[in-house]
Amino acid sequence: MSTPRPSGRASDALRSVSIEPGFARHAEGSVLIRMGGTEVLCAASVENRVPPFLRGQGQGWITAEYGMLPRATHSRSNREAAKGKQSGRTQEIQRLIGRALRACVDLKALGEMTITVDCDVLNADGGTRCASITGAWVALAIAMEQQNKQGNLHKSPLRAQVAAISCGLTPSGAVLDLDYVEDSAAQADTNFVLTSQGGIVEIQGTAEDSPFSEEAFFELLRLAKIGTKQLFTAQDAALAAFRAK
Amino acid sequence: MSTPRPSGRASDALRSVSIEPGFARHAEGSVLIRMGGTEVLCAASVENRVPPFLRGQGQGWITAEYGMLPRATHSRSNREAAKGKQSGRTQEIQRLIGRALRACVDLKALGEMTITVDCDVLNADGGTRCASITGAWVALAIAMEQQNKQGNLHKSPLRAQVAAISCGLTPSGAVLDLDYVEDSAAQADTNFVLTSQGGIVEIQGTAEDSPFSEEAFFELLRLAKIGTKQLFTAQDAALAAFRAK
Amino acid sequence: MSTPRPSGRASDALRSVSIEPGFARHAEGSVLIRMGGTEVLCAASVENRVPPFLRGQGQGWITAEYGMLPRATHSRSNREAAKGKQSGRTQEIQRLIGRALRACVDLKALGEMTITVDCDVLNADGGTRCASITGAWVALAIAMEQQNKQGNLHKSPLRAQVAAISCGLTPSGAVLDLDYVEDSAAQADTNFVLTSQGGIVEIQGTAEDSPFSEEAFFELLRLAKIGTKQLFTAQDAALAAFRAK
Amino acid sequence: MSTPRPSGRASDALRSVSIEPGFARHAEGSVLIRMGGTEVLCAASVENRVPPFLRGQGQGWITAEYGMLPRATHSRSNREAAKGKQSGRTQEIQRLIGRALRACVDLKALGEMTITVDCDVLNADGGTRCASITGAWVALAIAMEQQNKQGNLHKSPLRAQVAAISCGLTPSGAVLDLDYVEDSAAQADTNFVLTSQGGIVEIQGTAEDSPFSEEAFFELLRLAKIGTKQLFTAQDAALAAFRAK
Amino acid sequence: MSTPRPSGRASDALRSVSIEPGFARHAEGSVLIRMGGTEVLCAASVENRVPPFLRGQGQGWITAEYGMLPRATHSRSNREAAKGKQSGRTQEIQRLIGRALRACVDLKALGEMTITVDCDVLNADGGTRCASITGAWVALAIAMEQQNKQGNLHKSPLRAQVAAISCGLTPSGAVLDLDYVEDSAAQADTNFVLTSQGGIVEIQGTAEDSPFSEEAFFELLRLAKIGTKQLFTAQDAALAAFRAK
Amino acid sequence: MSTPRPSGRASDALRSVSIEPGFARHAEGSVLIRMGGTEVLCAASVENRVPPFLRGQGQGWITAEYGMLPRATHSRSNREAAKGKQSGRTQEIQRLIGRALRACVDLKALGEMTITVDCDVLNADGGTRCASITGAWVALAIAMEQQNKQGNLHKSPLRAQVAAISCGLTPSGAVLDLDYVEDSAAQADTNFVLTSQGGIVEIQGTAEDSPFSEEAFFELLRLAKIGTKQLFTAQDAALAAFRAK
Repeated sequence: MSTPRPSGRASDALRSVSIEPGFARHAEGSVLIRMGGTEVLCAASVENRVPPFLRGQGQGWITAEYGMLPRATHSRSNREAAKGKQSGRTQEIQRLIGRALRACVDLKALGEMTITVDCDVLNADGGTRCASITGAWVALAIAMEQQNKQGNLHKSPLRAQVAAISCGLTPSGAVLDLDYVEDSAAQADTNFVLTSQGGIVEIQGTAEDSPFSEEAFFELLRLAKIGTKQLFTAQDAALAAFRAK
Repeated sequence: MSTPRPSGRASDALRSVSIEPGFARHAEGSVLIRMGGTEVLCAASVENRVPPFLRGQGQGWITAEYGMLPRATHSRSNREAAKGKQSGRTQEIQRLIGRALRACVDLKALGEMTITVDCDVLNADGGTRCASITGAWVALAIAMEQQNKQGNLHKSPLRAQVAAISCGLTPSGAVLDLDYVEDSAAQADTNFVLTSQGGIVEIQGTAEDSPFSEEAFFELLRLAKIGTKQLFTAQDAALAAFRAK
Repeated sequence: MSTPRPSGRASDALRSVSIEPGFARHAEGSVLIRMGGTEVLCAASVENRVPPFLRGQGQGWITAEYGMLPRATHSRSNREAAKGKQSGRTQEIQRLIGRALRACVDLKALGEMTITVDCDVLNADGGTRCASITGAWVALAIAMEQQNKQGNLHKSPLRAQVAAISCGLTPSGAVLDLDYVEDSAAQADTNFVLTSQGGIVEIQGTAEDSPFSEEAFFELLRLAKIGTKQLFTAQDAALAAFRAK
Repeated sequence: MSTPRPSGRASDALRSVSIEPGFARHAEGSVLIRMGGTEVLCAASVENRVPPFLRGQGQGWITAEYGMLPRATHSRSNREAAKGKQSGRTQEIQRLIGRALRACVDLKALGEMTITVDCDVLNADGGTRCASITGAWVALAIAMEQQNKQGNLHKSPLRAQVAAISCGLTPSGAVLDLDYVEDSAAQADTNFVLTSQGGIVEIQGTAEDSPFSEEAFFELLRLAKIGTKQLFTAQDAALAAFRAK
Repeated sequence: MSTPRPSGRASDALRSVSIEPGFARHAEGSVLIRMGGTEVLCAASVENRVPPFLRGQGQGWITAEYGMLPRATHSRSNREAAKGKQSGRTQEIQRLIGRALRACVDLKALGEMTITVDCDVLNADGGTRCASITGAWVALAIAMEQQNKQGNLHKSPLRAQVAAISCGLTPSGAVLDLDYVEDSAAQADTNFVLTSQGGIVEIQGTAEDSPFSEEAFFELLRLAKIGTKQLFTAQDAALAAFRAK
Repeated sequence: MSTPRPSGRASDALRSVSIEPGFARHAEGSVLIRMGGTEVLCAASVENRVPPFLRGQGQGWITAEYGMLPRATHSRSNREAAKGKQSGRTQEIQRLIGRALRACVDLKALGEMTITVDCDVLNADGGTRCASITGAWVALAIAMEQQNKQGNLHKSPLRAQVAAISCGLTPSGAVLDLDYVEDSAAQADTNFVLTSQGGIVEIQGTAEDSPFSEEAFFELLRLAKIGTKQLFTAQDAALAAFRAK
């Protein structure tokens, strides 16, 4: 029998989730997403041009950047701007967020427009990349609604909701939505990016120390579907809150 | 006669100020300071070592770093970490914050300890460097109280409170605490860093377009003293709120 | 019915594989791996020290670096050394290779030693990260045998073989070992890093354009197991060829 | 009673000043300015284009760059070009020089032209930023006269002379034009950039160690006006020398 | 009397030379050149544009880049892409290769086309810059023949063959084509770039430790002419092999 | 018959040479060398430590850095510190200066000391690298005399004088000491670094456009010996002037 989770949560329980729209007042769309002790500010910026490799092709582009405040973590990490470069981890995460968002957008319908979603971690307690994706989708959706109201978009380019959650194999067994303590001790850490229509957008599974089995992997996928279902509901609620303002 | 201020404020009126302690949960001391539409997260981190140039001298060091989220501004600015360097403006501001804090600390009393205060602008509406200094002082004071409670500091190294405010010459005359709209149209922009004991820590006065007179400068200084007096009260209240938790 | 693969291969057929040991004459272990038109030079270098974060912990470290010659590709790409930084893609790949190798090594048994495996792509035709992992494992195994012969290692720190293969959803259906043409047109691209003992080390599945289903994912995993089985045999043969020299 | 100044100068005495025009033979305007042991080569370069943010606005631009030869100082400092970046101090100084020059130029009258003034310190003995501003103004004025002779400028865009001087609170009291020895021991260091018409362009006052009083500040300003008056005369003489050639 | 060469070669003997065309399959022209234990992959890439400084002048450009795989050497060297810059040595060598190639090309006859030759050292045993030049010339010639076949070039812009060889003063006297062991112990190291028509393109002679005499220099030049004569023959053979494919 | 030189000089005539000691007041040794319109400030800095690769070997090190002020040239060039890197040309030149100086110094006799010679071009009119070497040798010699007087060096580590001169093939034939106008039109440009004892330290000959003959090369070498003879005399005179101060 496995030990209880450090947080006392059930193996298939998310941390408390809140998605508050409108935090970045200048952005076309923004939310502050909280998953337990993890807080990420997601801000979508719209520009009426596309990167050089897409010019003249009648389609748009969605991209993302990721950052972490130096003291979002237990001990202070060096500021990437001061070091003069983004770490490999940062680049990997922002590439993932961008791919996840593009997978649910009809770039033709977007037209010659670029939307950049900045995901900046204010407080980190595990799962920052997943929270970034889940929050970024809402920031993106708000920005699109705002563009629609302004007459810049005639129909929504969004084809589905996208949310992400981490699952892992820990001393408490296969569990959903790892916090920092669990993540540090996990044998396997897997991030799932899924759509509201049941599709898989991205799967990243990593054995930290020793390989894991197919069966374990399937259990993690099962948990991820439970978790993202709740995240889609939270996204809907955040959008409703935005519209009600 | 000069025109009214865009915000309708009196020439010697601050914007609404709030200093909320504890936002960065992992930091030894932190506040979220708001001055009107400007919001800065200030987080103090303590390390038990000093930079190489101070080793073995029995004194500590206080330093600061400054950053702005890409979409803290009206239009998105490029992320400094992605550009691979901090702008001249960023470096100038973080050097100013560090100097301002050190001027009110007895570095000998601090002992061989480094405190780094990160000031990250979440939303910008003018006066970010001044808000950073005012907030950073509170984050620093909280971190020192925490170190004191843990037995790492035996007496407070703080010699005074420090706060900063901008004043400027605008179409509405000499005014206190410029917001972004006023700042953009100002003929002169002056930042005052003053102590609770009436001392001058730093004065930075800049004619944007054409020189200004000594008389005008004295009027700006008079306003700054009015403004910082209120900021010292707000700092006191924030510290009291922290202690009451 | 789906269209035939551009190469005419069956959906579960690998490209021709060759793993030639000894190409980098100065390296402690090296191979030139070819998978169809993809050629990667993998060279393992042994150093008798560990990175700072591991000092004094009685264990070793395995890391990897990845590069691509500027004209390994259809059109010349800029040299990363001249641009002054490694792309996000490069960093993501070299982090993956390092993790994959570490997952099959007992770092305690390695002792205070660092092995760096350089994977440099001489010719690229799809699947370079997978070929890098498969080849890197052999370079690592050769370097360990050489250290063992020299008396620096008393038992093998290798716990299993590791190999990697890409599978994807293409106009020809779910297929194994995508070449460049297939990769460019794939709806989903998935890299599997598996061990000779049936364990999962890493799964990276990405929907390029639109999400894919769980069923499709399971089919890709089935193909990956077919492919890696053949790669383990090729690794064994390469090691045998090395020992026979 | 305060101690005498290390140099024996009266508290309101400048060091010996010389401004020699024409040192950089290729530049449109140049001077070698010496203030005591500080020597700065100021060279103005004219280009018939403006930076992107000013294109099509019918106005010009003035900017400055600052550097220090590695062995301009007591002990050798690292070459910024070799380190790969300019320090925060360098960027702060060159931004100051640029602002100071622009404050005395009618950029509309300049037309679509950029003048860059390079200030390179050949020997440093305190006050390099002030000497740079005072010398740069003369280099700028010479370049404008040369452009006027060539028919590229129809009237002078210069609205006033600009000069800068440091004043500080030292063990000898409030003094004018600090050399390196005084600067190192100063309690407060203040740079004043003033115009020949009595206007304030820039004030930068910094408490090095402990705050200073308003009264002390007014005394520093009084000294600065004495000092810059002499610098305006020296600038006039240098221009006259240039015209006489 | 001097000691025998470590390799046992006569003082005027080259190492075994092979120039194998076609290694980089995507390149317009490529060879793998081997001189003893030194192996360099030379790949020529053709682009239909010229650098900005040559636009509209009706001529082309030839340039080169040089790199060394991290484990081409006895002990691993750091990857330049990871360090974020090319060393002075790398830049010096690639500038040399570019100049050497341009000296034998009629850039007017080339038309508005840029050919970049990448020289990447796979294994290093001395003389890598010379092998790069000798191999790069063949890669260039193949690329030009290919462009000629495609109708992009009407006559050959090549005016001569170019080859390079090192000669040096070692404990074995003046010798031709130094390997790594000889190079490390040489008193003087001289690289000669000569044309098939007897012309001098580049001479780089360096005293490693103590100066050398004119007479010694003339002997090194004599050896270089013997060596390059054989290299021109090897280049011819490689071109013939390419044409026969 | 060839045309006269633009400057009217005889083919074997140097430009006017002056070597003024003591320009950089803080440096252990310095000179301002002028060769016609070229002016270089050479400053030698002494440190009592050696680079890591020489520690504990009982020998010293001589190195050099080279820079050019942005407006040393006809049109302004970008500041390398602002661009964030040194050009390939700069690195090539500073490596050459360092090698040239080391070739005339007994590094064992120097002891564990590093001397860095900074060569900064204030005005450029061709031949800056040669003037740098010739001047750097005097700065080095002065620094060594100063160290000797201070008891840090017991005998001179200098084994010979070193000077450098460019020669080239121009429309006026083979000529000595090219100025900028000649250099721009030269068919071949050759830099000779020779010792006062007749030894060759470095030869760098480059055909700019088309190869040149052995005979031409010998004529250039003959001119170089004429030129450096005069430079050795000028170096002696500068040292005498320094001692006489």
